[in-house]
Amino acid sequence: MTVADIRALLGMPGEEIGTVPGKATGKAFLRLAGYADADRESIVFAQGSAELAEALKSDAGLILVPRDAALDAAQVSSAVNERMMAVDHPKLAFALVGQWFERFRQAEVHPSATIATDVALGKNTSVGAGAVIEDGAVLGEGCVIASNVTIYGCVRLGDRVVVQAGAVLGAMGFGYVRRQDGSHVRFPQQGTVRIGSDVEIGANTTIDRGALGETVIGDGTKIDNLVHIGHNCVVGKNVLIAAQVGISGSTVIGDGAVLAGQVGLGDHVNIGPGVVLGGQGGVFPGKTLAGAGELFAGTPAEPVKDYLRGLARVRRLK
Amino acid sequence: MTVADIRALLGMPGEEIGTVPGKATGKAFLRLAGYADADRESIVFAQGSAELAEALKSDAGLILVPRDAALDAAQVSSAVNERMMAVDHPKLAFALVGQWFERFRQAEVHPSATIATDVALGKNTSVGAGAVIEDGAVLGEGCVIASNVTIYGCVRLGDRVVVQAGAVLGAMGFGYVRRQDGSHVRFPQQGTVRIGSDVEIGANTTIDRGALGETVIGDGTKIDNLVHIGHNCVVGKNVLIAAQVGISGSTVIGDGAVLAGQVGLGDHVNIGPGVVLGGQGGVFPGKTLAGAGELFAGTPAEPVKDYLRGLARVRRLK
Amino acid sequence: MTVADIRALLGMPGEEIGTVPGKATGKAFLRLAGYADADRESIVFAQGSAELAEALKSDAGLILVPRDAALDAAQVSSAVNERMMAVDHPKLAFALVGQWFERFRQAEVHPSATIATDVALGKNTSVGAGAVIEDGAVLGEGCVIASNVTIYGCVRLGDRVVVQAGAVLGAMGFGYVRRQDGSHVRFPQQGTVRIGSDVEIGANTTIDRGALGETVIGDGTKIDNLVHIGHNCVVGKNVLIAAQVGISGSTVIGDGAVLAGQVGLGDHVNIGPGVVLGGQGGVFPGKTLAGAGELFAGTPAEPVKDYLRGLARVRRLK
Repeated sequence: MTVADIRALLGMPGEEIGTVPGKATGKAFLRLAGYADADRESIVFAQGSAELAEALKSDAGLILVPRDAALDAAQVSSAVNERMMAVDHPKLAFALVGQWFERFRQAEVHPSATIATDVALGKNTSVGAGAVIEDGAVLGEGCVIASNVTIYGCVRLGDRVVVQAGAVLGAMGFGYVRRQDGSHVRFPQQGTVRIGSDVEIGANTTIDRGALGETVIGDGTKIDNLVHIGHNCVVGKNVLIAAQVGISGSTVIGDGAVLAGQVGLGDHVNIGPGVVLGGQGGVFPGKTLAGAGELFAGTPAEPVKDYLRGLARVRRLK
Repeated sequence: MTVADIRALLGMPGEEIGTVPGKATGKAFLRLAGYADADRESIVFAQGSAELAEALKSDAGLILVPRDAALDAAQVSSAVNERMMAVDHPKLAFALVGQWFERFRQAEVHPSATIATDVALGKNTSVGAGAVIEDGAVLGEGCVIASNVTIYGCVRLGDRVVVQAGAVLGAMGFGYVRRQDGSHVRFPQQGTVRIGSDVEIGANTTIDRGALGETVIGDGTKIDNLVHIGHNCVVGKNVLIAAQVGISGSTVIGDGAVLAGQVGLGDHVNIGPGVVLGGQGGVFPGKTLAGAGELFAGTPAEPVKDYLRGLARVRRLK
Repeated sequence: MTVADIRALLGMPGEEIGTVPGKATGKAFLRLAGYADADRESIVFAQGSAELAEALKSDAGLILVPRDAALDAAQVSSAVNERMMAVDHPKLAFALVGQWFERFRQAEVHPSATIATDVALGKNTSVGAGAVIEDGAVLGEGCVIASNVTIYGCVRLGDRVVVQAGAVLGAMGFGYVRRQDGSHVRFPQQGTVRIGSDVEIGANTTIDRGALGETVIGDGTKIDNLVHIGHNCVVGKNVLIAAQVGISGSTVIGDGAVLAGQVGLGDHVNIGPGVVLGGQGGVFPGKTLAGAGELFAGTPAEPVKDYLRGLARVRRLK
């Protein structure tokens, strides 16, 4: 990857490339790195003067720095700035460069994977060792299904979906009807799972299929490890769901919401677009949280200001 | 499935079949459906007038309705009632019909499953792709073991047990003895797991074997995804355990108890028969909750009335 | 295993072996057992008079008893004491004997395991059915990798590491950079996982690789089922982590700390050596808990004395 490639990637075609001199433009960088591991073929990034000082001590060949940062003038001296390239958002640029490198990954279906006869597998989709994809599943282009993943037949994935090892998509939901003798009969769990494009799903996460209808995960949503998403949930676009979050059946989550680790949502909960719920927060069945950008915390979840005030009042009692 | 079949299934043999006219008796229904997907060969159910209005707009061939419901008289007019069948409990009837359809599922052991030599596999038991059943395990009749499940050799399953993908039954429990230098030696984990009949176990759930004795799950108990059940626990019959519940070692749970999502129980806890513990509730080691039908909440768990009173008092302080 | 073997194992070579008469020294014991299952070839242990009374009713061939216990004199009478052996710490001795028996387990790589070409597998390392070990992974000697485990290529295990079924080591961490349009680009997740010796990892647990650097688990640390450890965490030596604990990225945990079930730690948290955090306790991002042997509880976690005082004050309000 050359500076010209980065320039094109970041939409800076005609622009002065910060402090990188023309002669570096043709130089090839082969990898991203942290400061400790960087060599001359590595790209690193720095978000401020302190980080830049560390970066300059490394052997990195290229350092992405903020365009408008109040960087130490001495740092940006002629002796060192041959390695720097100013961009709008160094961390984002670094991530985008990472994505660019991934394009060269070869798609491969491991011979030990079990892919049923009636599976539609998109182009450039990888399937890891021991993964199982059952009859009826549909996978888009450029998906990466890791080892030992299970995808039931009722699941449909968009493009560029990443599923990490051990995740289970499309198992039966937890719905039972009680008989008079106290035993339970499973309510039919014959629905589907529809997952959008650019969704990423963590290791050992489980997403159940709808009972009769569908469970939906919107485009661009990212889900961490060991998350549970129940039957008939509808999760919006670009939602972030951290590890061990549990979402009961038929809950709806708006676009851009953020659920921190171990959050628990009852069934038929409604989380508005852009709501942020802090770690271990809980919402009782049927309740609603709303307000884009609003931060909630605690169980039952309340605006963080109220949550902190409650903590302080209890502390004062002691 | 014909109306006569349903009549037999629900124990209504000699009875007037609600509003379904005689000529419909021989008609065959092929599936269950939600209203949106229903066609003339589909059975749906409605629990009241609002649902029935929706059901009647659908193309469903048969609508299970409550026998005694205060249904809108116009709805039950001659023009439409040819599609209705009155039953005691439409949702339960719908679930039972679902069970009836499942009888036609063919049992199959996938060639990629690993079943050790010394495994007793009951009749009509299915084993999914990539599942592993180790030497010594005993599985009853009509079990359904999904893909990528692991069953250690110390596990014994009753009849009609359903284990969803990725679940792990019989791993070693978490028991260690501390040495003086601060390191830990594993206490022997050489016991067994005994699971009753009609138990259902969710995706990626883990149930550990006993240390020396056994871990027991009673008949008819239903367990959701990502649940942890520690060594030597004794779970009663017809217990419901929702997703991400964690149960530490040697805890006892009485028949018919209900644990909502993310509940956490310390070791040697005693949950009485019929106790209901709300989501994220926690019980400290060695404690007891008792009272059939009593609802508990919070950590440490208390009767829900006390829990709500506590929340209200703290709120008033603010 | 003979009494002489036990004597050697426990470092009691020249010592009087409690109450076991010389003639028993050559007798062979074949297994450990609980009282209910014990036969003449079984070893059991008792930590006090009540347990010893039970043990003496069993058929156990050898009973490990405390050296200095105020055992009932009648129990230690000549008629019965032929079966007893006094040791410093019967439960620890029992665990050490268990470890001794394990030495005879044959290491085996199951033919259905997928081990990539470029994997370094130590001597006497077992790999279970359906397990997947990807290119680049390094496993030490005497490791036991159970069925359906996934080890990504970036993982390095020390000696005698035990990984139970379904665990996933080395998946990508949960790190994203937000774009202005609300979508997220994955931050590069190209680091490694380094796991020390004598570490044990529970079923379906997930340990993510570092983003750029490494995730570290120290020697002797024991991790229960369904635990999540995020990218770039550094967990010390001899730490105990109970089931369903969630540890966010870049958190540091000191040697000998204990995290009870369902504890949740935000990112960049610092848990000091020897700290004990009670079940369901939570620590907000960036916070520190310190004090060897100190017990913390609640969310946000506080010293247990303060936690209990808070509970009592709220209760008094009601």
